[in-house]
Amino acid sequence: MPSTSAATADASHWPPPFLLYLGNAPDDLAAKTARGLVQFRPEWCVGQFRGPECRTSVDVPDMDFAQARAAGANTMIVGVANAGGRLGPDSVADIVAALEAGMNVASGLHERLGSHPQIVEAARRNNRHLFDARNPPATPVGNGLRRAGRRLLTVGTDCSTGKMYTTLALETEMRARGLKADFRATGQTGIFIAGRGIPIDAVVADFISGGIEWLSPERHDGGWDLIEGQGSLFHPSYAGVSMGLLHGAQPDALVLCHEPNRPHMRGLGHYPVPDLRTTLAANLAAAQLTNPEAIAVGVALNTSKLDPADAARACREAEDLLGLPAQDPVRDGVARIVDRLLESVPC
Amino acid sequence: MPSTSAATADASHWPPPFLLYLGNAPDDLAAKTARGLVQFRPEWCVGQFRGPECRTSVDVPDMDFAQARAAGANTMIVGVANAGGRLGPDSVADIVAALEAGMNVASGLHERLGSHPQIVEAARRNNRHLFDARNPPATPVGNGLRRAGRRLLTVGTDCSTGKMYTTLALETEMRARGLKADFRATGQTGIFIAGRGIPIDAVVADFISGGIEWLSPERHDGGWDLIEGQGSLFHPSYAGVSMGLLHGAQPDALVLCHEPNRPHMRGLGHYPVPDLRTTLAANLAAAQLTNPEAIAVGVALNTSKLDPADAARACREAEDLLGLPAQDPVRDGVARIVDRLLESVPC
Repeated sequence: MPSTSAATADASHWPPPFLLYLGNAPDDLAAKTARGLVQFRPEWCVGQFRGPECRTSVDVPDMDFAQARAAGANTMIVGVANAGGRLGPDSVADIVAALEAGMNVASGLHERLGSHPQIVEAARRNNRHLFDARNPPATPVGNGLRRAGRRLLTVGTDCSTGKMYTTLALETEMRARGLKADFRATGQTGIFIAGRGIPIDAVVADFISGGIEWLSPERHDGGWDLIEGQGSLFHPSYAGVSMGLLHGAQPDALVLCHEPNRPHMRGLGHYPVPDLRTTLAANLAAAQLTNPEAIAVGVALNTSKLDPADAARACREAEDLLGLPAQDPVRDGVARIVDRLLESVPC
Repeated sequence: MPSTSAATADASHWPPPFLLYLGNAPDDLAAKTARGLVQFRPEWCVGQFRGPECRTSVDVPDMDFAQARAAGANTMIVGVANAGGRLGPDSVADIVAALEAGMNVASGLHERLGSHPQIVEAARRNNRHLFDARNPPATPVGNGLRRAGRRLLTVGTDCSTGKMYTTLALETEMRARGLKADFRATGQTGIFIAGRGIPIDAVVADFISGGIEWLSPERHDGGWDLIEGQGSLFHPSYAGVSMGLLHGAQPDALVLCHEPNRPHMRGLGHYPVPDLRTTLAANLAAAQLTNPEAIAVGVALNTSKLDPADAARACREAEDLLGLPAQDPVRDGVARIVDRLLESVPC
């Protein structure tokens, strides 16, 4: 039976390995989901499909649909939309062709695969599954009750400061030390990487904190839930999401993510990026509503645009300012942040 | 042509006068929407329909559907659900009967009228309209750009502290002084009273602030938009909605709504109500992200559970604590709050 699944769905409906659909992605940023998969799940990525006007690559072999299927791809992942955020006619035709070639199709776009009758019909005809990662599960309203288990949440001065990367790096580091630690995904790329999660920006507004309580329920095995943050309390478009996420997470520990020298808030040239101290104070105050013991344990800096000397200086300045270990997870890993976490919050 | 309309719809699709459907409402609170209409739009309310197990009344004549139609009712307003928040079989049958009797039907419930084929079919057959007030319009993401016009927002220590009542009382007082002032509704009861609005708790999380920017766009006539607040920054279930609402509103002025002596946050026995000073400081800090000139101009206390002496004392204490006029809009009106507004924010 074909099906259109919400993010709760058994990941067996969209099994790896994957063909990554880039379509006519106009720039690197448009391929963010595909790039995240190549970075964190390279073993799942057999190839990429690029349209004639595609302006980026995620550095896996180019394939058409038949080649991908022959190479073992079970699911095509759609992470890019055209300029209007929509699935254009070309993309719809490509998705139908991928289904005809025998792959399931999973999408991270706000626009639903299931809203296109041609796609639904092609899935039915070929007995393949469709999965819309931005289709949130139904969850209860948040109740704010303290629940068992340890939780860490990444927060940021802005959107796209490295919260997902940092959270996954923490999972890797903690597991390498023999700790139980599980990444909890809140965005579409994270959901594809983890195989489950909740697209928190797509839930109905009354259910933001409840969605996170559902994602990270009580836990009794001594392990950590590492919850992927979204947005920023200081982003005028999305702060409501960040606020509900903080309250639902009940974090024991926060890690603050920041890109030094960013000129302004993402997409908003008229808003400056808030400073680290102000951002951390606001996040701690909000977090302490549902977990009065919430503390900060580190700063993760995205220094990809700085040379090594400037990157090291930025980390030192953040350490001096906040009294917390500051590292670039890509350059330096997150070992010192995990050290501080384990010193500060008994496991 | 029958239609199922979103909250953007022309209110001519659900014209007054109204029959208020109470069904089998188990208590007074369940009839909140009907009671709000009787209070603020009594001229629109010809009667109420109560089921055999109804445990409340909004003090208008009891009528069946044929009687209501004969008395001139054009639309039946459904504001109550059964215990599970759903439209039970009895309610569905009643709604079909109201359509057969010749009324349009409008609902403020999360569950959509349009999700019941029997209701949709009855509307089609009788050429009547259905209106789901909780079905939000599609709006852009918020952009945080400063826009022309003056805006006031009511905020609260908790849910259900009188924000809608206070906002409507401010509209009445300001209009009585010859000012241009317009109530902007963000909840289902307010939408029925105003004839338009956005059900902000029902929008997709990424669009909370954008929804309010849509509700209260730039304004060049020197008048005020008076925006109905929702929830509380200190409510663990709903603070995300309150945060996005604050940012989208760009308020010049805040009025803080509070019920003295409430034992705990609504629905959450384990959360105390925050104090007035903490609540106001957090709301001003958040509001100043999108309007650095935001100030507070008053406190509206719901003293309905206090005797007159205790009510007066509660107002004095709030005034002394915050240095702002404090009034119970029901007992005292809001004249002193409007005085402060006009002194503080040039019109």
